[in-house]
This record gives sequence, C-alpha cells and structure tokens, in this order.
Amino acid sequence: MSDHVAPFTERDVQPGSGVEGVAASSRRAVLRGFSGAGLAGAAALAARGSARAQEATPEAGEGGTLSTQDISLEQAQAIIAAALEKAAEIGTKMDVAVVDAGANLKAFARMDGAWLGSIDIAIKKARTARFFDFPTGVLGELSQPGGPLYQIEVSNGGLITFPGGLPLKAADGTVIGAIGVSGSTVEDDAEVAEAGAAAIG
Amino acid sequence: MSDHVAPFTERDVQPGSGVEGVAASSRRAVLRGFSGAGLAGAAALAARGSARAQEATPEAGEGGTLSTQDISLEQAQAIIAAALEKAAEIGTKMDVAVVDAGANLKAFARMDGAWLGSIDIAIKKARTARFFDFPTGVLGELSQPGGPLYQIEVSNGGLITFPGGLPLKAADGTVIGAIGVSGSTVEDDAEVAEAGAAAIG
Amino acid sequence: MSDHVAPFTERDVQPGSGVEGVAASSRRAVLRGFSGAGLAGAAALAARGSARAQEATPEAGEGGTLSTQDISLEQAQAIIAAALEKAAEIGTKMDVAVVDAGANLKAFARMDGAWLGSIDIAIKKARTARFFDFPTGVLGELSQPGGPLYQIEVSNGGLITFPGGLPLKAADGTVIGAIGVSGSTVEDDAEVAEAGAAAIG
Amino acid sequence: MSDHVAPFTERDVQPGSGVEGVAASSRRAVLRGFSGAGLAGAAALAARGSARAQEATPEAGEGGTLSTQDISLEQAQAIIAAALEKAAEIGTKMDVAVVDAGANLKAFARMDGAWLGSIDIAIKKARTARFFDFPTGVLGELSQPGGPLYQIEVSNGGLITFPGGLPLKAADGTVIGAIGVSGSTVEDDAEVAEAGAAAIG
Repeated sequence: MSDHVAPFTERDVQPGSGVEGVAASSRRAVLRGFSGAGLAGAAALAARGSARAQEATPEAGEGGTLSTQDISLEQAQAIIAAALEKAAEIGTKMDVAVVDAGANLKAFARMDGAWLGSIDIAIKKARTARFFDFPTGVLGELSQPGGPLYQIEVSNGGLITFPGGLPLKAADGTVIGAIGVSGSTVEDDAEVAEAGAAAIG
Repeated sequence: MSDHVAPFTERDVQPGSGVEGVAASSRRAVLRGFSGAGLAGAAALAARGSARAQEATPEAGEGGTLSTQDISLEQAQAIIAAALEKAAEIGTKMDVAVVDAGANLKAFARMDGAWLGSIDIAIKKARTARFFDFPTGVLGELSQPGGPLYQIEVSNGGLITFPGGLPLKAADGTVIGAIGVSGSTVEDDAEVAEAGAAAIG
Repeated sequence: MSDHVAPFTERDVQPGSGVEGVAASSRRAVLRGFSGAGLAGAAALAARGSARAQEATPEAGEGGTLSTQDISLEQAQAIIAAALEKAAEIGTKMDVAVVDAGANLKAFARMDGAWLGSIDIAIKKARTARFFDFPTGVLGELSQPGGPLYQIEVSNGGLITFPGGLPLKAADGTVIGAIGVSGSTVEDDAEVAEAGAAAIG
Repeated sequence: MSDHVAPFTERDVQPGSGVEGVAASSRRAVLRGFSGAGLAGAAALAARGSARAQEATPEAGEGGTLSTQDISLEQAQAIIAAALEKAAEIGTKMDVAVVDAGANLKAFARMDGAWLGSIDIAIKKARTARFFDFPTGVLGELSQPGGPLYQIEVSNGGLITFPGGLPLKAADGTVIGAIGVSGSTVEDDAEVAEAGAAAIG
C-alpha cells in the first residue's frame, strides 16, 4: 500500500497556496518531530507523535532485503478484546478495526447495537493511522482550512482525521499496524483505542 | 500511549469557525442523550433523537441471536405518503427515501418536477441518519471545520450531514430505519422529514 | 406487452457454455427450494440453503414493525473461531468475514500469511450470500455465459459468485447474516465456510 | 443521461475483434428491427423489441425545443402497486423500481423479506431498459461471449442484462421511463415487470 501514498514534503507547499498559520518550516518540524515555534496544543502533540513515528526504520537484512515486522492475528485479536473490554467498561458500543503493517485489514469486531456508519470509519481510522504513522487526530489538526494538509481526507479512498486511530508499534518502535475505533464521542473512541493499543505489550 | 492521542475538546472549537451553538460540553451531552442548553432547531431535534437512540438495545433471543425489529413496507409507504402530503402543503417538490434497520433502501418517491440531484441526497440522508441514529443536521454541526467530526462526509461512500434525515423508531425506541428528504431549503427538508417520521405512530 | 419480454428458459442454457449441472428446470427448483437432481458439492449445498432461505418470513410485531432476528457478536466470533480452526486443520490460510442481517460487516479475521486480495473477496462473499440468501456458488452457476443471471457480478458494487459464502440462519430458518471465506481453492473455502456456519448451533 | 450513452454503431465491430456468429450487417438489422438472417430465438425477439423501441421520436415543438413526455409519480406508484399485487399473487417477494424518461429513479418499493441484493438490481434493470429502450433480456442475448454487445454490462456504472426490466411507453409509443423488478427467478421477475408495465394504461 505504501507506493500508493504520496509523501508530503516541503516542496508541496506552494507560495501563495493558501496555507496560512503553519509555515513550511514549522510544518516540516512538526513532521520531523521537533516543533520550532509556537504551535500550541495540537501541534505540540503532533510533534511528539511524529517523533515516535520515526523511532524505527526498516533495515537491510540478508540479500539486501528489508527486515520488517508485522502484527500477528493473535496480537490483533488481543487488541480487539482489550478495546471491547474498555468499551463495555465505559458503557459505549464500538466498532474496532486492526490493520497490519501494509494497512490492510487484519481483524474487526462490531459490538451489538454499535453504529453501522462506524464500520467504515473504524477501518478508515486504522488505515489513516498506518498510512502516516500518526494518531488520526494529529492529521485532523493539520487538515483544517488553512492548514498544511487541507483536504487530505479525499486521498487514499477517504481518510478519517479525527481521533480514534493509533499506530501500533513493536517493542523497538517499528510500526506494525494500527487500530481504529468508532462508535461514541471522539474522546471515548480515543480512550478505547488506547486501551486496545496497550494490549500489544 | 496516552500522549499519542489528541482528543478534541472545547479548545478545538475555534471562534468563528462556523461551529455554532454546540460547544464541546454540550456536544458530549448530545451524544449521550442529554441536551445541556438552548440548541435551536436541528440541534434540539438532535438532542431528542439522541436520547431516544439510546433507549433500546438489541437483546439476545433464542439460540443467542439478537431479537430486533425492522420497518415494514406498509410503514415505509405511510411515511412517504405523509411526507409528500406535507411537501405539497408547503408548496415544495421533494425526493423522499426510507431505509430499513440495515440502512438498505426500502421505499422511495420523487415528486413531479423535484430535483434530480436530490435522489442521491435523499437516499444518503436516510442512510446517514441510520448509520449514526442521529438527525443528519446534528452530524453537520459536528463536522464543521474545527469540529470533532470534521470531514466525516468522506466515509461510508459519502454522507450528507445537513438537515433532512431522521432516524425512525418503534414504540420502544428501537431504531427501525430512517427517512431522508431533499428538494428545497434544509428547513423545508427537515419539516417534511418530521412530518414523514410522525406517521410511524 | 408480453412480446417485449424474453424470459430465459431451458433453451438458453447452451451445451458447452460452461453451465453444468443446473438446467433451467432444476434452477427454478433451486430458487424455490427443491433440488431436482444430483447437483454435487456447492449445488447440493445450494439446494439445501435455498430451501432454508424460504423457511422464515419476517412477521408484523408491535406497532406494525417487523419482528426479526440478527446475529450477535458472540455468535459471529464463535463462527470465525470455528472457521479458523478448520482452516488450520486442513493446512490453509484464510480470510474470514461475517456480516449481519443487513449485510453489514460484523466481524473479520485474516490468518497470518493469508492473501491480501482475499480481504475484499471474503467480505464480498459474505455480502453476496446475504444479499440473496444463497451460497455464493449457486449464483456462480447461474451467472455463467448463457445462464439466467449472466453478469450479475457487476451489481451491488461487485459480487463474488464462486463458492465460499454461506447464509447464516437462526434455529427457525431466519437468515441472520452470512459468512464469507477466501484464501485457498474454492473447495477449501467452501469447506471452511461450512465449518464456520456449523458453529451457529 | 443520454449523452452518457455511447450508441453502438457498425463501425464499432472491428474485423477480427472476436465478434462471432452475429455479423455486423445482421447486428445492424437487429438494432433496426429487421433480422436479416437466421438468428434464431433470442435475436428474433430482440428484433421485435427493437422495432417497437423506435416507434416514437421526440419532435421539435415551439421555439425549436423538443416536445417530450415523462412519467408522473402517480403513474409510477400505480405501476409499483400493480407489480406488488402480481408478486403477492404468485407468491414472490420483489424489489420494484421505476425510472423516468431521464433514467433517474422515480419510485421504489421493497417487499418485506425481499432480497437486499435486488435493490441495486431492480434499479439497474430499470435504468438499463431506459438506457437502450429495450427489455433488459434482449441486451443480455446480445452481450454473451461472441455477441455484438459483449461486456456492455461494465458501462454506465453497471448494467443488468437479464430479464426483469422493461421500457414504459405512452399511448403514442414514446418511452417515458422503465420498470425494473428483481427478487425471484428471471421468469417471475419478467412476469411481475409486465404486470407493472400494464398498469400504465
């Protein structure tokens, strides 16, 4: 899936393109994990998220191929079980999706009575989180009108950029997949996604 | 992992961002079924709709299956007839769609001279209302720039988040489908949708 | 207006056209729930499946709504577990999807190393089986060149009409969902789907 | 919608294109309503259907515009009612769609317990019948492997070319819309479509 994704680099921000409030330099900083300037709140969060996203890079193994890691079905099912447990605990009904390192669906569960519209959103949140190795909510802050990633949602067959999607990482920081949760407020969605992600060890 | 999550809270609703009348606190209340304040029009409906949406939960029946309810064609046709009557009464030409509990089309009618573009919008409004068991206009308030559900419209093959779609409920509060109306102003659309929904008993 | 209609009858099934084992007369029987002859494998399943598909009809409940049943998440997860067990037993790697009565995704699992392309196929098989309350392979026999449902695959956003999708039924015959399996030969897919479906009780 | 349709003319049949058994000249004859040669069964039917399809042509009215006719909602609802009555009479559960002269949805009804997958098929049958002013089954005979319209189903967002779709005509032969029926055997579908079409007067 990665070759379908157009990485956003500095050259993409055209002078006079309507990008306001986040200059290219600070945007690059955000994406690199160091916020150069007074991007309060959201962007600071973004920076931290981004920093982690860059922790691990695939390395060349024998024969020049890349040695990678990927999520197992056992892990994915444990993540979903933990998410469902948290959802029940806080009295919500959730749709929970897990995608693998290739952003392809690995496991999914919809609680009885959970929103039908959240099937697609949970899956899209998980895919979005893996596409860019960010929590979905970080992208949502950058995709607002005037933001550097304005309208990024129309790419990749539809992204969801509000909270509830999180990258899933191996012990060494390698992103091995992502979880997406939808079914309540975005705060609840994010809380349940965190509970699911925590199950990875 | 909590620092990966950037939940949207009240600070994310920018002044002048187009989000009006629904602060984060009241939004959460809306989603939980308690309207905190003077949300006029669509939002008032939303609060009520939401409250009802939580009333009924599918219960386990024989053999572990869920016992549910669904809209009948007779009901759907009565709803459309009532909507068409109201539309004629207020001098508008409408497209009216009814979907069932699974968000699948049950019945549809387009008045002579009504907009062709409203065929898809009426159906999408009905599906959107069933997808989340909310009036469509409530989603539209939450999906504005800076809102917690910004760009949700790109999900589910396209959502319509302005007024004119309403969940349809059985006597015990179970959502058994939804109506979607399009063809005039959103105020007219919503009025006709309400008239249709009222026919369910 | 009768001369405008060209109903397909037995003559339309050309010898050597690829339609085997299902003549028009037995096809009609299949659709009505009576298998006329020695239709092996999928078709035998089809006949039984079809017979059951006609067993239950939604009935009017309180307030004129239909009283129906739907699959629970607990059932869906038990079905997937049984399917995965069978897949491991016969040494295959499968994608397994379960949809509810409304043909909406309820649960999904992809075994480690299973085909990526089978994600979509497993889901489409499950949806196809629920769309028509038939095993998918039965449709495939009818959709061959010269068959009565030729090219039905272009409908509903893409159907999969080879074996591996089965309706799921409550004790009284009500269709409460469907399972779709993809990842190996269609014979293996069908065997795993049957093992999953058997878990429903 | 007509400008979306690529009319099939003689030049479209390339020598060596794989079109076998129906020479260009006889194909043109079919499309014009006179079968020149030994096209048994299907093509003869096609010819008759085609002949009728050409009965009425829009004529220039005042100011050079075309004077046309279109189906009314009242007519569409009467057609659906007649179709539903016939469906009940023969013990089937049907999805019934009516489109207008522009091939846009005018009215729709799905009987309780009718196939979910037939929603799309009924609508596509109606659209297909209006797109070419033919009963759908006629197109299906011409779209078989080796036929002159092979794979036409992939055009127009998906056509359905088996029986159950019929053009609807005013007293003077003008095509004012079409009906599409799906939910049982194609023979049953066609019978119900005829009953619906007969209600137009």
